[in-house]
Amino acid sequence: MTANPSLVLNKIDDISFETYDAPEISEPTDVLVQVKKTGICGSDIHFYAHGRIGNFVLTKPMVLGHESAGTVVQVGKGVTSLKVGDNVAIEPGIPSRFSDEYKSGHYNLCPHMAFAATPNSKEGEPNPPGTLCKYFKSPEDFLVKLPDHVSLELGALVEPLSVGVHASKLGSVAFGDYVAVFGAGPVGLLAAAVAKTFGAKGVIVVDIFDNKLKMAKDIGAATHTFNSKTGGSEELIKAFGGNVPNVVLECTGAEPCIKLGVDAIAPGGRFVQVGNAAGPVSFPITVFAMKELTLFGSFRYGFNDYKTAVGIFDTNYQNGRENAPIDFEQLITHRYKFKDAIEAYDLVRAGKGAVKCLIDGPE
Amino acid sequence: MTANPSLVLNKIDDISFETYDAPEISEPTDVLVQVKKTGICGSDIHFYAHGRIGNFVLTKPMVLGHESAGTVVQVGKGVTSLKVGDNVAIEPGIPSRFSDEYKSGHYNLCPHMAFAATPNSKEGEPNPPGTLCKYFKSPEDFLVKLPDHVSLELGALVEPLSVGVHASKLGSVAFGDYVAVFGAGPVGLLAAAVAKTFGAKGVIVVDIFDNKLKMAKDIGAATHTFNSKTGGSEELIKAFGGNVPNVVLECTGAEPCIKLGVDAIAPGGRFVQVGNAAGPVSFPITVFAMKELTLFGSFRYGFNDYKTAVGIFDTNYQNGRENAPIDFEQLITHRYKFKDAIEAYDLVRAGKGAVKCLIDGPE
Amino acid sequence: MTANPSLVLNKIDDISFETYDAPEISEPTDVLVQVKKTGICGSDIHFYAHGRIGNFVLTKPMVLGHESAGTVVQVGKGVTSLKVGDNVAIEPGIPSRFSDEYKSGHYNLCPHMAFAATPNSKEGEPNPPGTLCKYFKSPEDFLVKLPDHVSLELGALVEPLSVGVHASKLGSVAFGDYVAVFGAGPVGLLAAAVAKTFGAKGVIVVDIFDNKLKMAKDIGAATHTFNSKTGGSEELIKAFGGNVPNVVLECTGAEPCIKLGVDAIAPGGRFVQVGNAAGPVSFPITVFAMKELTLFGSFRYGFNDYKTAVGIFDTNYQNGRENAPIDFEQLITHRYKFKDAIEAYDLVRAGKGAVKCLIDGPE
Amino acid sequence: MTANPSLVLNKIDDISFETYDAPEISEPTDVLVQVKKTGICGSDIHFYAHGRIGNFVLTKPMVLGHESAGTVVQVGKGVTSLKVGDNVAIEPGIPSRFSDEYKSGHYNLCPHMAFAATPNSKEGEPNPPGTLCKYFKSPEDFLVKLPDHVSLELGALVEPLSVGVHASKLGSVAFGDYVAVFGAGPVGLLAAAVAKTFGAKGVIVVDIFDNKLKMAKDIGAATHTFNSKTGGSEELIKAFGGNVPNVVLECTGAEPCIKLGVDAIAPGGRFVQVGNAAGPVSFPITVFAMKELTLFGSFRYGFNDYKTAVGIFDTNYQNGRENAPIDFEQLITHRYKFKDAIEAYDLVRAGKGAVKCLIDGPE
Repeated sequence: MTANPSLVLNKIDDISFETYDAPEISEPTDVLVQVKKTGICGSDIHFYAHGRIGNFVLTKPMVLGHESAGTVVQVGKGVTSLKVGDNVAIEPGIPSRFSDEYKSGHYNLCPHMAFAATPNSKEGEPNPPGTLCKYFKSPEDFLVKLPDHVSLELGALVEPLSVGVHASKLGSVAFGDYVAVFGAGPVGLLAAAVAKTFGAKGVIVVDIFDNKLKMAKDIGAATHTFNSKTGGSEELIKAFGGNVPNVVLECTGAEPCIKLGVDAIAPGGRFVQVGNAAGPVSFPITVFAMKELTLFGSFRYGFNDYKTAVGIFDTNYQNGRENAPIDFEQLITHRYKFKDAIEAYDLVRAGKGAVKCLIDGPE
Repeated sequence: MTANPSLVLNKIDDISFETYDAPEISEPTDVLVQVKKTGICGSDIHFYAHGRIGNFVLTKPMVLGHESAGTVVQVGKGVTSLKVGDNVAIEPGIPSRFSDEYKSGHYNLCPHMAFAATPNSKEGEPNPPGTLCKYFKSPEDFLVKLPDHVSLELGALVEPLSVGVHASKLGSVAFGDYVAVFGAGPVGLLAAAVAKTFGAKGVIVVDIFDNKLKMAKDIGAATHTFNSKTGGSEELIKAFGGNVPNVVLECTGAEPCIKLGVDAIAPGGRFVQVGNAAGPVSFPITVFAMKELTLFGSFRYGFNDYKTAVGIFDTNYQNGRENAPIDFEQLITHRYKFKDAIEAYDLVRAGKGAVKCLIDGPE
Repeated sequence: MTANPSLVLNKIDDISFETYDAPEISEPTDVLVQVKKTGICGSDIHFYAHGRIGNFVLTKPMVLGHESAGTVVQVGKGVTSLKVGDNVAIEPGIPSRFSDEYKSGHYNLCPHMAFAATPNSKEGEPNPPGTLCKYFKSPEDFLVKLPDHVSLELGALVEPLSVGVHASKLGSVAFGDYVAVFGAGPVGLLAAAVAKTFGAKGVIVVDIFDNKLKMAKDIGAATHTFNSKTGGSEELIKAFGGNVPNVVLECTGAEPCIKLGVDAIAPGGRFVQVGNAAGPVSFPITVFAMKELTLFGSFRYGFNDYKTAVGIFDTNYQNGRENAPIDFEQLITHRYKFKDAIEAYDLVRAGKGAVKCLIDGPE
Repeated sequence: MTANPSLVLNKIDDISFETYDAPEISEPTDVLVQVKKTGICGSDIHFYAHGRIGNFVLTKPMVLGHESAGTVVQVGKGVTSLKVGDNVAIEPGIPSRFSDEYKSGHYNLCPHMAFAATPNSKEGEPNPPGTLCKYFKSPEDFLVKLPDHVSLELGALVEPLSVGVHASKLGSVAFGDYVAVFGAGPVGLLAAAVAKTFGAKGVIVVDIFDNKLKMAKDIGAATHTFNSKTGGSEELIKAFGGNVPNVVLECTGAEPCIKLGVDAIAPGGRFVQVGNAAGPVSFPITVFAMKELTLFGSFRYGFNDYKTAVGIFDTNYQNGRENAPIDFEQLITHRYKFKDAIEAYDLVRAGKGAVKCLIDGPE
């Protein structure tokens, strides 16, 4: 058996390094990936600090990590699209291939989903393995090959980028749209970048921190920004050069943002809810109905979103980083060795200004 | 000048009979209709009791009525689809023919809409004429001819039926759907009837009054009913024969109904908001997002909805009332002569069990 | 090993009875069905007479049959939706669960499809098993349970009915549509029945044989019929009561039908091509473009179509056969015992007026 | 009366200069435009040479021109979006504002369309005025203001660019698509430019003339090109870097192109027919159906297409011509004074390599 060093969340406030047996290829379509780069997600931190998110409750030790890229080290005999040495982004949730949700492109809604580093609290059933380990096994079709000019670090951003892709697809963001993105955290910034790449004419990023708004402009995702402490819908539209957004990508779940979004958006507009709230929010349902808005709930990502996300990097960097329309690398503000992974988690948990913190795989 | 007896809301609590000059045909596409039957709508009552709905404020006398059918008495020289003697349903809102909303089929969102019996509070501008008068002028294309086997009384129901048509179209209700309709007032009952006619396999109507639920079944609109005082989503689904609704038509605007709808609907479901609330409501946004629901705001009706509504009556009664799948006539619980119109308004305002109250046109 | 009597097409003009070993459950989701009723399809006859259809070439013996219903006799340990004794319609094509087509609801386009009684001409690979045998193995999710009031005979019609369902879904047939169906063979008749069930206001069936047109009306699928020997688009519209079809379901592949369909359909209409032609056809491309028609190629059926087809039978017969809107049973014109199956094939091949010929399963 | 010098097609082979009375503002929404730049379209040449296109037959003198931009010189009292001095692109077809086609965004299908320089052969009815004159009257909402950085010459390209916009919208061209454009004339080149702007990852332009293909690359519209004399679908895909197009924009109407498009496109692909043919073409209907392709007939342009086209120029030139992704100016190969307009027509008619020839308005 090959050793598989792993980072394990045992319970609230308790992360340790453990070594398990590495997974082995059992199906013809299996692929073994050596994990090279993993991003820390807000949900990881939430489990670290609170032991649960909604109905997902940590009841036994769980390998962390679900935003990863790595290199193929072994392939099953039926694998045709990948070979040893290929760099890949790892899609971390494997649905049932028999579910209607999977069959119809909405596998994110599959009730049998096994999602990396999302606890399974049923007794007798293991947690789905996380990606913060040396060797991770995945079916071929949940890996997306990275082009040569897309780094493994960018590969680790494919997961949150796919969240933005999914949102922009639900909102049918296309050439000429005016998009307001609420929230300038990693998901909001990446959603704004997707909207821009999909052809939005204007992208206004809204947040309450000026430094975050500055980054939205610096990386080339936002054409305009708005600090929502400074006004309401009228001021937002003014800050948008007089343009009324026809699409909102709401990435905060915060009640004032949702209200501002509904107020500011044009009648007939598309409103995508990406962010989560701790509980119910006060919602202007009559304004919503009288403007005939459409609200799309957005959860993770589904069919083809990962491929589209890699495609965005592919296109963005086709003429080199210096000519890239969007500077995604700026989002990677911190980098750690695997042996320092706990320190990385504590940094992000402390909320000290990290946008995206990456951890190297075990050597 | 021809006399045009009219029912006028002067201000809160003050309705009177007035006689104006009848309108005259001025455009080639104009049609003059003698109004025969008019339904009383909840909004009429609201203006009567409160003088305003949202931003629509009564500041000067206004002819009441917007749910009407009548008989063509004169046509402009360019009219080709109607002739004197035709019975028609009157679509009461005329948008600007230059607006983008009108051009793209969403004229209900046109900011220049002149809607019968909806006050225009701008100084110097008249209120759009209501239909509770003898003669009403309309452009040809906002009148829909009633087939011979569809009565003028049914014609007066076309307006609220169109609200249901619009909602079911937004929710793409089709063969095989399981639809939950919240609210068993006129709009909810008609929305349920539309869902049934569009091919829904199951239609469960939800309300807190058993007598209203009984009517939903009696007229053939509901396959199942549920009194929401008796339980939550689990009980609703049980009452629905174990079927999970994949479409919700929310016709109440009531917070508990919206919550129950979001809880009960299947992941990926379509939720149409028809009812209005007095203000913001508490809304389970995270449940909504994680189930990837879609919320469609629904406001009045737009392109082709009136024609579809008349088409529903046409189909429903093609083999006579006794063989009609849905007994719409039962909804008409009260009938008044024009001279007793104020009494009719007071009856409905008192909330004494009227479903739909019709008033004859002046003779 | 259990014996599995089977009907085998060895080569052109050569059908024989053979006995193989019955399949055995190997996967947890496997279900073993005893086949009870099987319809003969035009494609079976084509292979019988010509040994090929397009690129599908018969190079080795193949069990016939793909329109079947039967009774569950054994279930794998993971099966949850079916139990021994359930009657089921068998969906005969199993795609790869890894293909993008399968994942996105379009598994009919999966290049790895194994379709019953459709030859696999690759050397060393077996033909997919047909259903004209005693025991047929299928994954659980490609079987649809028949309600108690839907007979096994109707179950054998689910396959061709699904072809009609797929076509009507592609054409978005809905309440109020006027649909022209070309071809009054089994597929055309069933497509017309689907269009009617989906809410089409008018369904005109077009053919060159009056007896077939008569059946279209007799079973309740057509509201109007038209013998295309008697005129062109003007006459068709006249025969349709002056209604211009806004949807065409073309189930013949015949050049004159395609031309007539394009001529008769309303501008902006939806044209679904179900029927196949032996080669290219003369096509009025400029008329097509200037009317901004949309042509949907329709091939077999995909996600959810089988369930919808069973749902159509379920709804149609909910109040008993005597009250059923459409009399599907009339389509079953001939019935044979399994031992007489070759005779049945010869009858259909001879073209002697069979609409749908059913063969019992081996006892 | 103001004099209105105009270029008039009297009959086949007969163009002359005439002077009429200039139009006068009669409706509050009317705008008077002084025409500055007009492109010559293939249809103009066709009327010049043949006197008809399909059912459009020239029976009386007609002012030529429908691809124009100019400067506002007078506005009606109800005009709010334009003022004297604004440069505008002129949308040349005015539909009936009462037609269902207009109301639903498909006004290009309006049977009452009055399209500039498209003859009305009904006796007693005049031809719709063309734009090759000094003063042209248009309702406000059929004029689109040009941003300062978009020249009047580009404004004259808005009309054919809108044809490409309409096609790409029908084909839902979006980020990541692989688009094959057949035909490298003005419409094909502009359609390719639109597809690129809408986010297509690859755009292969197909023609039989290498110099035209070169221009497709030179202007930045095509990522790849293919001379269809050099092979079939296999070679096309190879020339496309191994990518299989999932969208085809067919801008020739030529039978071999249509066949090649159907062969090369991926199953499930979207095929937009823009080009017209003289008559029916041989069409591979069975291949089409078995690949479940969708064919969208595309005719001129409809709701919002003109605005999108101006938006493309706006975005393309936002950082100056030297940084523009697509060099549209290269398409303008010839320029003439109004007094030399007949010479311009003769040049284009002679087919001597003009891509787009512009004529100045009368001074």
